[in-house]
Amino acid sequence: MDIVRPEAKAQAPVSPRRRRFLARGAVASLAAASGAAAADTPSLNVPPQVPQWMREPGAGFLTPPYGLPSPFEKHVLRKLPDQASAFPTATRTPLQNLFGTNTPNGLFFERHHAGVPAIDPAQHRLMLHGLVERPLLLTMKALMRFPAVSRSHFIECSGNSMAEFKAPGKGSVQDIHGLLSGAEWTGVRLADVLNEAGLLPSASWILAEGADAAAMTRSIPLAKALDDALLVYGQNGEMLRPEQGYPLRLLLPGFEGNMNIKWLRRLKVGDAPFQTREETAKYTDLMPDGTARQFTFQMGVKSVITAPSAKQVLDGHGFREISGLAWSGQGRITRVEVSVNGGRTWQMATLDGPVQPKALTRFRLPWIWSGEEAILQSRAIDEAGNVQPTRAALIKTDGQASVYHYNAIQSWQIAPNGEVSNVHV
Amino acid sequence: MDIVRPEAKAQAPVSPRRRRFLARGAVASLAAASGAAAADTPSLNVPPQVPQWMREPGAGFLTPPYGLPSPFEKHVLRKLPDQASAFPTATRTPLQNLFGTNTPNGLFFERHHAGVPAIDPAQHRLMLHGLVERPLLLTMKALMRFPAVSRSHFIECSGNSMAEFKAPGKGSVQDIHGLLSGAEWTGVRLADVLNEAGLLPSASWILAEGADAAAMTRSIPLAKALDDALLVYGQNGEMLRPEQGYPLRLLLPGFEGNMNIKWLRRLKVGDAPFQTREETAKYTDLMPDGTARQFTFQMGVKSVITAPSAKQVLDGHGFREISGLAWSGQGRITRVEVSVNGGRTWQMATLDGPVQPKALTRFRLPWIWSGEEAILQSRAIDEAGNVQPTRAALIKTDGQASVYHYNAIQSWQIAPNGEVSNVHV
Repeated sequence: MDIVRPEAKAQAPVSPRRRRFLARGAVASLAAASGAAAADTPSLNVPPQVPQWMREPGAGFLTPPYGLPSPFEKHVLRKLPDQASAFPTATRTPLQNLFGTNTPNGLFFERHHAGVPAIDPAQHRLMLHGLVERPLLLTMKALMRFPAVSRSHFIECSGNSMAEFKAPGKGSVQDIHGLLSGAEWTGVRLADVLNEAGLLPSASWILAEGADAAAMTRSIPLAKALDDALLVYGQNGEMLRPEQGYPLRLLLPGFEGNMNIKWLRRLKVGDAPFQTREETAKYTDLMPDGTARQFTFQMGVKSVITAPSAKQVLDGHGFREISGLAWSGQGRITRVEVSVNGGRTWQMATLDGPVQPKALTRFRLPWIWSGEEAILQSRAIDEAGNVQPTRAALIKTDGQASVYHYNAIQSWQIAPNGEVSNVHV
Repeated sequence: MDIVRPEAKAQAPVSPRRRRFLARGAVASLAAASGAAAADTPSLNVPPQVPQWMREPGAGFLTPPYGLPSPFEKHVLRKLPDQASAFPTATRTPLQNLFGTNTPNGLFFERHHAGVPAIDPAQHRLMLHGLVERPLLLTMKALMRFPAVSRSHFIECSGNSMAEFKAPGKGSVQDIHGLLSGAEWTGVRLADVLNEAGLLPSASWILAEGADAAAMTRSIPLAKALDDALLVYGQNGEMLRPEQGYPLRLLLPGFEGNMNIKWLRRLKVGDAPFQTREETAKYTDLMPDGTARQFTFQMGVKSVITAPSAKQVLDGHGFREISGLAWSGQGRITRVEVSVNGGRTWQMATLDGPVQPKALTRFRLPWIWSGEEAILQSRAIDEAGNVQPTRAALIKTDGQASVYHYNAIQSWQIAPNGEVSNVHV
């Protein structure tokens, strides 16, 4: 047993951090603000009443006991697009309300091509065929007996932030950039399953097909399949949610969202890309010269400040922390720089560790808002040396005809009244 | 933009891992098992039908869109104790159904002393008083403007596994060891808030009080408060759940669960322990000589195999992965050893990284079950050199009168028919 005996006395009652946060800001040291009665600066001269919730026993256990957020958090939800659509195909993650890096499963963004199938895992099969020595037809039970790995990775829709190619969106960071989430995934290495089947020498591409009514289908380069691709059944500690591919999803870390085939039912090994509808008619990037880029798998280096962000109103001057998310399809985030003056000068943000490859990374920068207009930006750099571009630089290379792979620096304007809005600078 | 062009061809279609998993076990290479019709070994000679869920569009978006698990996972729930109780005070986490290390918030174990209060965060206050220069009364808004940190830590009830002091429990790993969960917590350093108030020289202990009807109250050594204690409002990316202390919880990494005061409303700085009911009448450890240990804050080094575990039945011989969780209140797990023969010989398990201090750590060991009786055990070692004791060694030092801090090695017996049960060896 490892028992800590009570210390006689702590060495010196001095905090390791000397900064004072309340004293610098609008939320004054409360002993000094004894006359204030505002909600944020309650007075110690009026001792707080014992609240009603201490005067009676609280609620018992829920039935069924799968827990949900507090009713006071009912505004924290995934959201359909602001523009009405007869056939909505995506919901967005409330990035402005979240902490840390992994997105709760109930808030993970959704993108469906034919709705969410209700799959019985006992009936589900994964077929592996094509250029292999031994075709396989696997039950979930059989798959779940392979050695498992758990890894944190982001998934971002290639169409995330697409409206920003044109004009600054009027919504929140959820509306603008919310086709992005992160999770700890658990599953088996695709390389292990391919090894079980035995690849023939000409194998070089793999077709992956989903068991939804769209039979969502994409071509995967074999090198990716043998590198870090996973067949995942777990998300943030429990089985995948139905809208995320229950019971089985292909996970291609760093690749655009639609390639992470949900409800995975079939892998066919071939010797060339399969040129499916999703990679000819769709998910190609129209360039300024009229040509289209095909197979733009990897998501670029990108970041966004989530606090403060558009549609929020700063509640007073003084100290606050700027915080946001950075990610790259090419590896680890090594640096995030933050500007509070529209890009004239930059400061190094701290990164919450451990920083993991192809995963959301939380960055933070302490800031004292003077009450004057400010423009906040973040710029991420990854371990391959990629630097998140300005919007002008991105449009110079990619034009404005494309709707995919927008990864430019986001600018939030703070007005003197504290209102935050999306601007292109 | 970081674009991967399609590779001409992958180098060599050889998996980096040469082990074959299916071929070694009951789940045969399916090309070879073409005559088998069992659910686990479907035949490729009978091509699978296009399932019903591919023939029609799936479900649209939920309203409200806070997602829930698949209906096929409705057995994965927190559980009340097996013994009926007029006043159940705890639910247990389904460790046998979970992956990775962080417990989904809907499945995080619960322990209440007077039910779950329904707290309006706008009305909630944290009072900080006693031996400080400037007493503070803080709103949630004010607290959430302090610099934030996110860290993964376990919480374990000091009474977890208590029945094992006496006799082997008949239930599942959830029933026996399920007062244990892990999460990524977000909040502010208690040291920063104490610094804001200014500690007086005689400060050495802090009373923490919850806003439930029990006014749950414990004494915290100042050294711990200044080390790694947090005031947390976030859990696994979103606001705390009501049953976990919404909107504010004291987090004392590695300390017994009840000290992580939920619904935190008051911190009083003093110069001695406060000798509350919870540390005199309760939460002391009765020793064989009739004395009681008080202030046994830190949780010991411990581990448990979750797959396979009691009440499960192995579905055939051959390859499977032994997997479980290890943790220590004193720091990082450095090693987990696994025995498949009741402790006669031990093998080193691999640890999922990055391993974090005072956090759940997933370990794994590949295993080929021959079909003979086996006794599985795991033994964890932490960075302070603590070794998880055998049950005999623990009882020799702590006796069997105590109900707290049981951290002995767990033994699971595998019968030839595949049934797994809890044994004391």
